[in-house]
Amino acid sequence: MRLSVKDMDVATGGPMIAVLNEKDAVKLDLHLLDRIKIRRGKREAVVVVDYAKSEKAVPRGAIGLFEEVLDKLNARNRDEVSIHFEEKPKSLGYIKKKLDGKELNYDEIRAILNDAICNNLTEVELTYYVAANYTRGMSLKETVALTRAMIDTGEKLDLKRRYVVDKHCIGGVCGNRTTPVVVPILVAAGLTVPKTSSRSITSPAGTADTMEVLTDVSLSMKQIKNVVNKVGGCMVWGGAVDLAPADDTIINVEHPLSIDAEGQLLSSIMAKKGSVSATHVIIDIPVGRDAKIESRKEAMHLGREFRKIAKFLKMKMEVVITDGSQPIGNGMGPALEAIDIIKVLKNSPDAPQDLRKKSLMMAGVIFEMTGKARKGQGRKMAEGIINSGEACHKFMEIINAQGAKITDERKIKLGEYKFNLRSKRNGVVKHISNKAMAKISRLAGSPNDKGAGIYLWKKKFDKVKKGDVLFTIYSESKQNLKFAVEVMGQIDGFVVG
Amino acid sequence: MRLSVKDMDVATGGPMIAVLNEKDAVKLDLHLLDRIKIRRGKREAVVVVDYAKSEKAVPRGAIGLFEEVLDKLNARNRDEVSIHFEEKPKSLGYIKKKLDGKELNYDEIRAILNDAICNNLTEVELTYYVAANYTRGMSLKETVALTRAMIDTGEKLDLKRRYVVDKHCIGGVCGNRTTPVVVPILVAAGLTVPKTSSRSITSPAGTADTMEVLTDVSLSMKQIKNVVNKVGGCMVWGGAVDLAPADDTIINVEHPLSIDAEGQLLSSIMAKKGSVSATHVIIDIPVGRDAKIESRKEAMHLGREFRKIAKFLKMKMEVVITDGSQPIGNGMGPALEAIDIIKVLKNSPDAPQDLRKKSLMMAGVIFEMTGKARKGQGRKMAEGIINSGEACHKFMEIINAQGAKITDERKIKLGEYKFNLRSKRNGVVKHISNKAMAKISRLAGSPNDKGAGIYLWKKKFDKVKKGDVLFTIYSESKQNLKFAVEVMGQIDGFVVG
Repeated sequence: MRLSVKDMDVATGGPMIAVLNEKDAVKLDLHLLDRIKIRRGKREAVVVVDYAKSEKAVPRGAIGLFEEVLDKLNARNRDEVSIHFEEKPKSLGYIKKKLDGKELNYDEIRAILNDAICNNLTEVELTYYVAANYTRGMSLKETVALTRAMIDTGEKLDLKRRYVVDKHCIGGVCGNRTTPVVVPILVAAGLTVPKTSSRSITSPAGTADTMEVLTDVSLSMKQIKNVVNKVGGCMVWGGAVDLAPADDTIINVEHPLSIDAEGQLLSSIMAKKGSVSATHVIIDIPVGRDAKIESRKEAMHLGREFRKIAKFLKMKMEVVITDGSQPIGNGMGPALEAIDIIKVLKNSPDAPQDLRKKSLMMAGVIFEMTGKARKGQGRKMAEGIINSGEACHKFMEIINAQGAKITDERKIKLGEYKFNLRSKRNGVVKHISNKAMAKISRLAGSPNDKGAGIYLWKKKFDKVKKGDVLFTIYSESKQNLKFAVEVMGQIDGFVVG
Repeated sequence: MRLSVKDMDVATGGPMIAVLNEKDAVKLDLHLLDRIKIRRGKREAVVVVDYAKSEKAVPRGAIGLFEEVLDKLNARNRDEVSIHFEEKPKSLGYIKKKLDGKELNYDEIRAILNDAICNNLTEVELTYYVAANYTRGMSLKETVALTRAMIDTGEKLDLKRRYVVDKHCIGGVCGNRTTPVVVPILVAAGLTVPKTSSRSITSPAGTADTMEVLTDVSLSMKQIKNVVNKVGGCMVWGGAVDLAPADDTIINVEHPLSIDAEGQLLSSIMAKKGSVSATHVIIDIPVGRDAKIESRKEAMHLGREFRKIAKFLKMKMEVVITDGSQPIGNGMGPALEAIDIIKVLKNSPDAPQDLRKKSLMMAGVIFEMTGKARKGQGRKMAEGIINSGEACHKFMEIINAQGAKITDERKIKLGEYKFNLRSKRNGVVKHISNKAMAKISRLAGSPNDKGAGIYLWKKKFDKVKKGDVLFTIYSESKQNLKFAVEVMGQIDGFVVG
């Protein structure tokens, strides 16, 4: 069958699709989402079939192609192409197997991930895999296989060092920016820490958003390697490199229903650690009302699962269960969090002590895991490194190596529009909701507007007098500030009682 | 946020989508498949977000819209529209509930189907529902609720008669065209039979394909009502009317993995019967090697499930388990099957006796169910109606009312290219595979080329001499015939031993 190309003048940025007129499709016995191979001379592309119902969209005898397919075939409008039937990929059989409740092995899972990242699977097909993992559950063996397959289908940062340290936080606590404090302490003591972080999905800022206030975080794999070899560590955005890319592909179809099979959550995190060849990993699980994990029992269970997978991957792992009942630090939002961090590293008298304490505890655990400090001496060692200014010096070294923009916290710009929330009564702060703070902060513009966010003047258990400022909302736009204040009035996220 | 419209000049024919430049989407914190509301003056449309990665596809500040959305907003290129965040539909919560293994009630299922047919759910979201039904299973209560919801979200043919008869065959047997024989027998006896049939998906022809050789099958609801009121019955294509449209929407996402939860299969069939207000239904379950149902046990189970649902829907139902071990009749493919049918109705001496016998048995069962005949007398009554020529007369009446094209089987055109397969040995026919016959017949061009198909000169248990013609392949194209013969050589679908 020969058809004439119609350039649709659109890039899909994803699946390879061809649009046939519905009448042609019926004649060819092709169903929606069937696969065909398109040939033009020696070039070919396997695509998924979509229908056009009108002659206007795609007339009979034509085949509508998008940018990616046109490029692959080196074709343009009115070129003639031939189409051929194409078998479904083998990985579809494995997805069916999982739907039927059977366990998949490494090779099968790898085939699924491979086809997913090469766009050989449609979103619908990948959704069946995600749904099957969710409803059927995943065995430990499968979770380990998924982790390995995620690592093996992406780029790897192979540093060839005996100790490569990494950390991860389960999230859900605003302002919890320990990475930029912990990493320089560890690196100053001679450990290698190639830290990749994500941007925020639901919180006021992710580590990558915050670090971007101070330096460049979109480094290539080669640049990361150079920075780590030069200064011992980095703090970059994981999204700029192709570490475990299958994870993102899976997350895209998980998003509409916000479902996440536990096995997939574990694999997703562990794969990022495996991709940077981490040997020693600390996982932070904050627990608290309005945090991601709300009970200690749930946290303990998750910790056990992490440790099991780490054992299979031959990583040393410590899990710390921490207080997630309120935000950490005073600032929330990229610029405000960056200020907190530098204050802690510079030992400023007004540095947030909760952020400092938590960071020292975590650095201490890692010093003991890696044998840098004797049991019980880790925290003290970390304290020495921060007090001496070595940590701050190392931090500046790292951000300079990445391409520093700002090294002085006084030069960080905050949003020019502000609103102070004042207490209506005397009392004590009973609760500060992470979810409410995140919502207000994001409405004010964070993390996209770096200067937007919230500064907390009072924390939980602080005494408050009527008229005291509880927190300040910063925004770069009058409109956003107004909107944030409006919504703030509807949610009771800061309780004085 | 205000954006400028870019007319993408494409109709999606399905989901309402808007394409934003990826950078705009990130800034707006919009993920793939998130929903937004687009407003232009007083008009609005809820759409799902897609990304464009290049400025060429959709530049920043623009919003790419497809035909359906442009029409809804009455918008054109460069018009300004505003976008607003939109909550996810409630039905997503019900899909999540089913994924978590909980039973859904009628209102919840109806909400899902409603959103599915109004394109308020994306394919990915609907896939989660289908996957959940498949992996979690469906209770009888849920299956009945799904059936009712399918009926209630579509058009209904309300004939207001005491007896409305319908039939359905589970399928998988080539040439099994009993409908065009059974329907006129029943109607001639005074029963009302508003029969809608499907086109073929995997077989050489569906009833709608076959009837289309003789008459028009794409009738509107109003036309169907007129025909039934005038002559007592019809034989039309169900796809031309909106009976239980949710079923097709579900089938679209089932197709890539060929999965079908039993509850969905049952609902899908029963909903079509309910939509035409059937009161008496016969279900034909052919059993045999290479048929859709391969064991008697499986057929019995399915029969029980059908009867349970029928009881809830207050329909009388009989299930017949029939021989599906080889094709029925001699012809396979629309034209060849049409010839078989007319020969049976005309009592021709060369009419295929297996098709005649099976049709009489089924008509007999219905006569007994509806009280038209006493127990044990149904078949005889049917035989009388066919032998007297009344059935043939009624058949001609029905096809004339639908807009007959051909009433004389000698005027039916067969494909001009033929190939005779001859036996290589003396012996007895041991097996004729339905799957193999369907494959060869479809490769020869059926059901799209009406004249393509296979004529069986020998059936199972027939004696065969070396050199005897076993079957003839008909095709309308030399190329297709060649291809069919080639593949025939690779599959052993006709066994003489």
